[in-house]
Amino acid sequence: MKVAKFGGSSVADADQFKKVKKIIQSDKTRQVVVVSAAGKNSHEPVKITDMLIELEKEVKSKVDYQPLFAKISTRFIKIKNELNLKVDIEADLLEIKQRLQTCSHDYLVSRGEYLTARLMADYLGYYFIDAKDILIFDGDEIDYAASNSRLQRLLVQHDRLVVSGFYGANEDGSVHLMPRGGSDISGSILANLMDANLYENWTDVSGILRADPRIVDHSKKIDVLTYDELQELSYMGIGVFQEEAVRPVRQKRISTKILNTNHPEEGGTLVVDSNNKQFDSQVITGIAGKKNYTVITIKKYQLNRHIDILQRVLAIFQKFNISINYIPSGNDGFSFLCRHNDLSRNLDKIISELKKTCNLDSVTVNKDIALVAAVSLQLSKRPAIAGKILSCLDNSLIHVRFVFQEGSDIKVVIGVANRDYEKTIAKIYDESLEPQSKKISA
Amino acid sequence: MKVAKFGGSSVADADQFKKVKKIIQSDKTRQVVVVSAAGKNSHEPVKITDMLIELEKEVKSKVDYQPLFAKISTRFIKIKNELNLKVDIEADLLEIKQRLQTCSHDYLVSRGEYLTARLMADYLGYYFIDAKDILIFDGDEIDYAASNSRLQRLLVQHDRLVVSGFYGANEDGSVHLMPRGGSDISGSILANLMDANLYENWTDVSGILRADPRIVDHSKKIDVLTYDELQELSYMGIGVFQEEAVRPVRQKRISTKILNTNHPEEGGTLVVDSNNKQFDSQVITGIAGKKNYTVITIKKYQLNRHIDILQRVLAIFQKFNISINYIPSGNDGFSFLCRHNDLSRNLDKIISELKKTCNLDSVTVNKDIALVAAVSLQLSKRPAIAGKILSCLDNSLIHVRFVFQEGSDIKVVIGVANRDYEKTIAKIYDESLEPQSKKISA
Repeated sequence: MKVAKFGGSSVADADQFKKVKKIIQSDKTRQVVVVSAAGKNSHEPVKITDMLIELEKEVKSKVDYQPLFAKISTRFIKIKNELNLKVDIEADLLEIKQRLQTCSHDYLVSRGEYLTARLMADYLGYYFIDAKDILIFDGDEIDYAASNSRLQRLLVQHDRLVVSGFYGANEDGSVHLMPRGGSDISGSILANLMDANLYENWTDVSGILRADPRIVDHSKKIDVLTYDELQELSYMGIGVFQEEAVRPVRQKRISTKILNTNHPEEGGTLVVDSNNKQFDSQVITGIAGKKNYTVITIKKYQLNRHIDILQRVLAIFQKFNISINYIPSGNDGFSFLCRHNDLSRNLDKIISELKKTCNLDSVTVNKDIALVAAVSLQLSKRPAIAGKILSCLDNSLIHVRFVFQEGSDIKVVIGVANRDYEKTIAKIYDESLEPQSKKISA
Repeated sequence: MKVAKFGGSSVADADQFKKVKKIIQSDKTRQVVVVSAAGKNSHEPVKITDMLIELEKEVKSKVDYQPLFAKISTRFIKIKNELNLKVDIEADLLEIKQRLQTCSHDYLVSRGEYLTARLMADYLGYYFIDAKDILIFDGDEIDYAASNSRLQRLLVQHDRLVVSGFYGANEDGSVHLMPRGGSDISGSILANLMDANLYENWTDVSGILRADPRIVDHSKKIDVLTYDELQELSYMGIGVFQEEAVRPVRQKRISTKILNTNHPEEGGTLVVDSNNKQFDSQVITGIAGKKNYTVITIKKYQLNRHIDILQRVLAIFQKFNISINYIPSGNDGFSFLCRHNDLSRNLDKIISELKKTCNLDSVTVNKDIALVAAVSLQLSKRPAIAGKILSCLDNSLIHVRFVFQEGSDIKVVIGVANRDYEKTIAKIYDESLEPQSKKISA
């Protein structure tokens, strides 16, 4: 069986609901459907969830929230009417309205998923499940045992389910909201609990592209990649799939397919457990990157023998709540690569504390650094892959600040100036990822 | 003026003394001569310093030390006689003998340099200076101000000096021994104090080779390199020049020349301050490496945000007194590269503490890793240099465990299996450092 999760744009209006039904009906193994709250598209400019967040503000600041509430209600009622549904969504809306003054943030913000799932269940003829009845949280972690026993009880009577995404319940039964994009996680947990054969993640893009299309307009799609590769690319800013959604499916070695509700025929991108990937023609799977890093380099004679100093340095980073993204290092120095945004306000303070308390020889700061990462499962066996990437940057006036390929062996990371970021990605794409396509277009 | 330091093999016997005199007389600017203790060569199989260390053991364990003392005396008296010197080395030897039961380790072990310098001063007609009269230490650090005032007082009367290497004096006037190879440091400090134009380091090799001749038998010499390059190569095991000897000359931007007492005509290797190096035809200056590293990789979901965990991990390394040589790192992991010898006995304990106390997802160990570093000042501007190095390893069945090029920009480090170490160096030398020479020899 498959768990199919549909994102906000896939359920934005009645027309999108029809596409979802066609997809579900075309494959009887799609037994569990998870939906986000109705999102935005060319007809509907605002996501329901954003409207609910705004509604909460209006309620709290005692401005007249009636027009906004009416607007929210209208969207759901419109879908119901256009699809001739029977579900008493009006009663649900009334209950929400009555609880507006007293309800929790999590309850209110999760109503988009609740209402969308109510409509979708009726439309598909699937059994509706309020996620708070089956996804039980212990603090911020899902309690698999408790959730599973709740789910199994339901499965005795019902084998086709629509579940509201984005939330579950705390142990006391109150609504527990997940991070934004949490419906990806809901679907992944359900795929885990159901031991699904496949987790389908239906969205508005036909899978993951090999490079950012804003930089490489002729970028092709990745057909198959591993979770490790996905994780490396996600870390570098490819935002198709919520990061925390990987763990639950991966734990059970369930593949994930990223598909386009508007173009199911385009096939999407399949994410598989590393053992299953057959090497295809794409030696480099994809390339991604992020701008705006700051490199703080500390030098101290024979620093590698002074672990106490390193500890003091780390304590300072911790004090200012900075996450350290990479530490390439030398004999007498360490470089801390931090997000510019994490540092900005505190950079001067951090530098001054480092200088004052750590007895270093020098502290230097390099701003406006971008990282570019190319991901390939074959990197460690084929040193020429990284070799070619570096060689193609030669004579292009791109100053390579640092290079490293890690123990994990599947990505090579290059540091360049922010201003060289797009050029670096375009160059690597055309020279290393798709040299043929370049030849044809040239 | 130049400071010329002669190593142990350069002063091993009377014939070597003659070579030194020829060198000194050929250039009137060689005003300060620093000597090591007479070392070994094809005629003299044991270094004087090793004999003195042995002598101390014999004295302490109350075995008959007379034969060994006689052997030591004979070597100095033989040089004196062969060179027809006047210096009363016999009186010096007698004094040492009389103090044998009560003298400090530092005093006894430093007598090789003392006696060798006495002979050399007489032979060259230079003024002899006992290093303990001018090199004053404050703890383990040289006290430049105190040393300088002592030296300046002497320079009023004498402008050509022979100074004993390897030691100085503590503040109480007792002998302060430097680390083994310390005569390099003595010379460097004197070059600093004298504001020398050049520090000559005379030894038994004609400079620094571009690769270890035991691996690359056709390795050529490096003509010019910078202190940064020397430091990177030294760190990777090229042991021509004592590491701590770099600082004093470098501080005053004094160049160092490594020369061969037996073949002054071969020109040696010049080490210059980075500002002075003209790019020559050698894009990659040299290649070096070390075997027997162990990589300990820790994984923890979103480790880069858990600096507290990283601190706990470092505390464990510190507890076992392990120096961390490099930390290439990832999103959810860090890799600690340690010398196998540092770890060996404690590896299991360290792994078990890491697992027990740091709440990690996994701890893995990879043994038998070798590092290979190629040094080039042009690395960051010419990504193709690293590119070509990696490419030439392709199809050679060399598994590249990791690659990194640091912020310092002048070396690229490749991790390979111990068994691939020699092959990697040979391959890079022939394909990247000297592709011409390979073509000719092929």
